Amino acid sequence: MVVYSDEFSFETAKGTDIIDITSQILESVESSSIKNGIICVFSPGSTSAVTTIEYELGLVHDLENALERIVPEFLEYRHNERWNDGNGHSHIRASLIGQSISLPLIDGKIPLGTWQQVICLNLDNRPRTRKVIVQIVGD
Amino acid sequence: MVVYSDEFSFETAKGTDIIDITSQILESVESSSIKNGIICVFSPGSTSAVTTIEYELGLVHDLENALERIVPEFLEYRHNERWNDGNGHSHIRASLIGQSISLPLIDGKIPLGTWQQVICLNLDNRPRTRKVIVQIVGD
Amino acid sequence: MVVYSDEFSFETAKGTDIIDITSQILESVESSSIKNGIICVFSPGSTSAVTTIEYELGLVHDLENALERIVPEFLEYRHNERWNDGNGHSHIRASLIGQSISLPLIDGKIPLGTWQQVICLNLDNRPRTRKVIVQIVGD
Repeated sequence: MVVYSDEFSFETAKGTDIIDITSQILESVESSSIKNGIICVFSPGSTSAVTTIEYELGLVHDLENALERIVPEFLEYRHNERWNDGNGHSHIRASLIGQSISLPLIDGKIPLGTWQQVICLNLDNRPRTRKVIVQIVGD
Repeated sequence: MVVYSDEFSFETAKGTDIIDITSQILESVESSSIKNGIICVFSPGSTSAVTTIEYELGLVHDLENALERIVPEFLEYRHNERWNDGNGHSHIRASLIGQSISLPLIDGKIPLGTWQQVICLNLDNRPRTRKVIVQIVGD
Repeated sequence: MVVYSDEFSFETAKGTDIIDITSQILESVESSSIKNGIICVFSPGSTSAVTTIEYELGLVHDLENALERIVPEFLEYRHNERWNDGNGHSHIRASLIGQSISLPLIDGKIPLGTWQQVICLNLDNRPRTRKVIVQIVGD
C-alpha cells in the first residue's frame, strides 16, 4: 500500500471557465502504478471548484448560466465592500460546489460513466492559473 | 491495510427518484471485514448523485421541490437543443450535488447521525438502472 | 500505512452558524504523525455541513444570505408539517452542501489555498453541539 501525490496546473480565463481535467487525472493514475485504491482530486483556492459533468459545450454553457441564476454576480456582497475585487459571487459558488471529489480506482481504471468527465471550474472574475492535486492511496 | 471494492445496482423511476442506499453500503462494509479506514461511495453517471438526508418521505419530497426551484426543468438548455433528450436540468442538478461522498469507517461502523441516511438520486428524466460503487481502504 | 481517527466538538448558535475548523483539523493531523495520505473530514448529522471558504466575516454573511435566497426558511416544507420543528430548510441546505470533504495530506501539510479555510456549518434552527470526525489513511 502506497501514497502517491501528483499535481498539474493550467491557465484559465476569467470565470466561469470550465476545464475538462479527466485526461490529466488518468495520466497521474498511470504514473502512480497504483491499480486499486481511493483517489482524492483537490483544487486549492477559494474561487476554484471540482465536480463532474458530461463535457459538451452546450451543457458547459448551461452550467455557467445556472450558476449565474443561483448566485448572481451583481448582487450586494459584503465581501466586495471589503476588498473591492468584485468576486463575492465567485467565492459563494465555489463553497457550494466544493473543491474536492473522492473517486474509486479499480484495476487501474476510474469507473466514470460513459459520458462523464471530471472538471475544474475557475469561478474567479479574473484569469487564474489553477492547480489540481491528485492524491492516491492504494496498491 | 487492504483495498476492498464492492458495487450494487437498482432500478429507479424517472427523476427525481431518491433511494436510501445506507443498508447496502453497510452490507459492503461487513463483507469487506475492514474495521477502520475511509469509504468512497461513488455513483457513475452524469445524471446521478450521492448525498445524505434524513430519509423521511416529507423531506424527500422537499428535496425534489427544492431541485425544481433551483434548477427548473423547463428552462432553455443548450444541451436539450443538441440532443433533444430534454434532460439538461438533470445534468446540472447532478453536477451541483456531486456523485461521491467520503465517509469514515471506525470500529466497523459509519458514524452517521441518528437521523442520517446516504442517498442516491436518479435525476435523469427517464427510468435508469443506477450503480453505486463502495470502495474502502483500511484495515 | 495506518488509519488514524480523531474528533472534536464545539457549540454552535442556531443556523446559519459557520465555524472555521481548520486549526482543529491541523491539530488532528499533527497528533496522527501521518505525513502523506488522504483525510476525510466528516460532520455527522442531517442539518450539518462541511465545505471551504475564505473565512472573513463579510463572506460568511454572504454565504448565509445566499443559502436563504436559494433555500428560503419560510416556504412550505412537508417535513415541517410532519415534525413541526420548522427546520425543513436546514435539511435541504445540508443535503446540497454535503457533510464531508476529502483532502490530500502531503509532507505533513494540507495544501489549502492561501485564503482558504475548512468550515462546518450548523444549519439547524436551534443551537447544536456539532461534532467533526477527522479520519486519515496514510503513512
